Amino acid sequence: MIREVIVGTRTPEGDTHLAPMGVHEHEQTLVLAPYRPSCTLDNLLGFNQAVINLCDDVCVYVGCLTGRRDWPMVAAHTVQLQRLRDVPAHIEVEVERVASADSGRPRFYCRKKYVGTHAPFAGFNRAQAAVLEAAILYTRLDRLPTGQVQRELEYLGNAVQKTAGPREQQAWDWLLEGIAAHPGAARK
Amino acid sequence: MIREVIVGTRTPEGDTHLAPMGVHEHEQTLVLAPYRPSCTLDNLLGFNQAVINLCDDVCVYVGCLTGRRDWPMVAAHTVQLQRLRDVPAHIEVEVERVASADSGRPRFYCRKKYVGTHAPFAGFNRAQAAVLEAAILYTRLDRLPTGQVQRELEYLGNAVQKTAGPREQQAWDWLLEGIAAHPGAARK
Repeated sequence: MIREVIVGTRTPEGDTHLAPMGVHEHEQTLVLAPYRPSCTLDNLLGFNQAVINLCDDVCVYVGCLTGRRDWPMVAAHTVQLQRLRDVPAHIEVEVERVASADSGRPRFYCRKKYVGTHAPFAGFNRAQAAVLEAAILYTRLDRLPTGQVQRELEYLGNAVQKTAGPREQQAWDWLLEGIAAHPGAARK
Repeated sequence: MIREVIVGTRTPEGDTHLAPMGVHEHEQTLVLAPYRPSCTLDNLLGFNQAVINLCDDVCVYVGCLTGRRDWPMVAAHTVQLQRLRDVPAHIEVEVERVASADSGRPRFYCRKKYVGTHAPFAGFNRAQAAVLEAAILYTRLDRLPTGQVQRELEYLGNAVQKTAGPREQQAWDWLLEGIAAHPGAARK
C-alpha cells in the first residue's frame, strides 16, 4: 500500500527539505524510493533520518511542487529534523538499509522511531483526492498529451467544485496557474 | 467543505444503522442532508442523536452499499448509539435544528458533543479515493451511460492497481461485482 505524504530530509546545511512522495508500507517498515536526481535522494544518502509528515493540507503538496516551500515547522522529537507543525500525525524514521543505491531509484528501508498524533482524522474529502491526482498530472505535463491533461482536469474539477473547502480551492487554483504557465499549454 | 463519512443513526428498535454520506462542515456545526426516502432520514426524524464515523476503511463504505453491514461496533461515549470500533476518529452529535423538514432533502444541523481519536491519520492513499469515486458511480448506475461508467472505472482502476492495500483491493472487487450484476451491465 502506498501513502502520499510529505517527506522531510536533512540538507548538508542542517535545514529540513520537504518533498511530496509516495511511501510504501511493508509490514512495520516504511520504504522511501526517491528518484535520481532529487534533493531527497541526496539528503537520505548523506543523513539517515527522515520525517514522514502525514499531512492533510493539499496546499503543502501543491506548494512544494509550485515553489511555495515556507510552511510552519517545529522540532521533531527523536530525529535531528523539523516536522510540519500543522499535521494530524507524523512519523520519525531512521534508515536501516538501502537497496539498489546506484540505480535510478534507490530504496530506503526505514524503521519507525516515533509516531506523533496531533489531531483526529477529519474524514475523506473528494476534493483533496482530486487535487492530489491533479498534482501528479502536473508533474507529468512533459510526458502527457495536452488533450488527456485537459480531460482529466475537467473530470477532477467536478469533485473540487462539489466538495472543496478554502484550502482545496487554493491548491487547485495554484495547480491551474502552474499548468497554464507550462510551455505545453500553448498547444491548447 | 464536504467530508465522506459513515453516519450511524438509531432505529426504532434501538439498533445503530450505518450509511455512507457526505457531511457538510459549517463553522462548528455539522450538517447532515439525507435524501428522502432513506433509513437515515427516518431515524434522524425519530431520534436526535447520531455518530459521525470518520472511517478510513473503504470496505465499510462499499460494504454498506453492497449489503455487507455487519461491522464491529462498540458503545458510543455520550449518545445512545454504537460507533464503528475500528475507526481512527469519530464524532458524537446532537441535532439542534432541522431545516426543510418536508422537502426531498431535509438538513439536520448538528452540534458536536464528543470527539474521539483512536489512531493517527495514516496519510492519503490514492486507491481509497478511487474506491470512493467508484462507489459514487455505483449509486448512480441507473442514471449514467454505460460508456461513461466503463471509462471512469478504467481511469480509477489505475490508482487502485498502483497504490491499493488488501482492504482497498477487496472493496474495489466488491464494487466491480456489484456493477457487473447491475441490469445495465447487459448493455456492455
